[in-house]
Amino acid sequence: MTYGVGIRLNKGLVFMSDTRTNAGVDNISTFRKMFSWDVPGERAITLMTAGNLATTQAVVSILEERMKAPADRAPSMFEAPTMFQVARIVAATLKEVIATHDKAGQQADSAFHATMILGGQISGGPSRLFLIYPEGNFIEAGAETPFFQIGETKYGRPILVRAYDPDMTFEQAVKLLLVSFDSTIKANLSVGAPLDAELYTEDSLTTGRQIRFHATDPYFETISNSWGDALKDALDQMPDFKLD
Amino acid sequence: MTYGVGIRLNKGLVFMSDTRTNAGVDNISTFRKMFSWDVPGERAITLMTAGNLATTQAVVSILEERMKAPADRAPSMFEAPTMFQVARIVAATLKEVIATHDKAGQQADSAFHATMILGGQISGGPSRLFLIYPEGNFIEAGAETPFFQIGETKYGRPILVRAYDPDMTFEQAVKLLLVSFDSTIKANLSVGAPLDAELYTEDSLTTGRQIRFHATDPYFETISNSWGDALKDALDQMPDFKLD
Repeated sequence: MTYGVGIRLNKGLVFMSDTRTNAGVDNISTFRKMFSWDVPGERAITLMTAGNLATTQAVVSILEERMKAPADRAPSMFEAPTMFQVARIVAATLKEVIATHDKAGQQADSAFHATMILGGQISGGPSRLFLIYPEGNFIEAGAETPFFQIGETKYGRPILVRAYDPDMTFEQAVKLLLVSFDSTIKANLSVGAPLDAELYTEDSLTTGRQIRFHATDPYFETISNSWGDALKDALDQMPDFKLD
Repeated sequence: MTYGVGIRLNKGLVFMSDTRTNAGVDNISTFRKMFSWDVPGERAITLMTAGNLATTQAVVSILEERMKAPADRAPSMFEAPTMFQVARIVAATLKEVIATHDKAGQQADSAFHATMILGGQISGGPSRLFLIYPEGNFIEAGAETPFFQIGETKYGRPILVRAYDPDMTFEQAVKLLLVSFDSTIKANLSVGAPLDAELYTEDSLTTGRQIRFHATDPYFETISNSWGDALKDALDQMPDFKLD
């Protein structure tokens, strides 16, 4: 499993993903699941992946090869005129990779599926955030649903639903996401540190600030250790139930 | 889906379950999923169910028929000498009902499976809490894992993990469980009010206090409305992340 979150703020976009991959509980590895590309001043694109690692690595490799060989006729994320067109390219590539493995050769027990969060901005348009399904279609975040989650989404969802605010600063958003990730990590062995974060400033048109939180990062440890107490305090502060 | 929680406190046992059942999103009903029986002064038994409604109703009906006809040779929960033996009876009944439908007649798209939480006390022993699997085996709650959840367990788990304390009063436990249920209800349409709660006092050997929380219950509404603010306050109170 995996946990990844992309959120839209008035300040820009914030991404966070874990790095744990597992095939069973006895085959655990660390792989980056967040990928960023930019043409400074023109476009900045970030992709997070969840699902079959062979599938997601193949998708990222194909996307990168196309960007490096602009003479190829296949469409490249660096030539697409809008983020919507970038989403179409990523979605079509994902669908194509899954189809290749689904229908040919040996069959695996688990599916080859993957889900992705794509965000970014191209000069002339606002930043946009998409959730891409293994079927090759996708949806875009709006004012009512300003964030997307992929992977092991349930444990960390209540705090996002309750505490998200579009006016948040990047610092507040990092704090919120670390709490959401910590709740997930504490409950599910298949999600683990280090965590990758990226902070994309609206209209900067260059890959945002990237931060890696290791399990021993002092700030992450502070959040992890003190969130339990903060939750207990919050509960204490609520009016008590009265038995007659 | 369903959400049910049973927790062990030093004061006794606390149970809470929702009442929503659904077959698709357009076929929603309200059914009680918590069942209690007692022989005052001798034993008190409470059962919560999650899963296929036909299966869980059949299990409860079989258990009740056996209690009413003590002449039958089948073992009854009212004759079992220990809670462990009660758990064996419930588990065997569950396995038997599932097997009847799994192997015969028309096949359904969805499984006939169900999972149950069983708690109670029989004179001469302490109160005990079990989680019963559709396979007919079961595990018991201990000091390290003092609560069990069934159904849609993930959304409401982080607050239980963080805020549970065996020294809690019943009033505090009800508050904690209502928060856990509210987080789940806000995230998942298949879990809904009214909620049933039962508070079993250790050594009382009689069915505990039963409370039903409707969606319009003033206390439940207070919890539901103010928990969001309490969470935001808790987040604000944590140290901010600092970008250099």
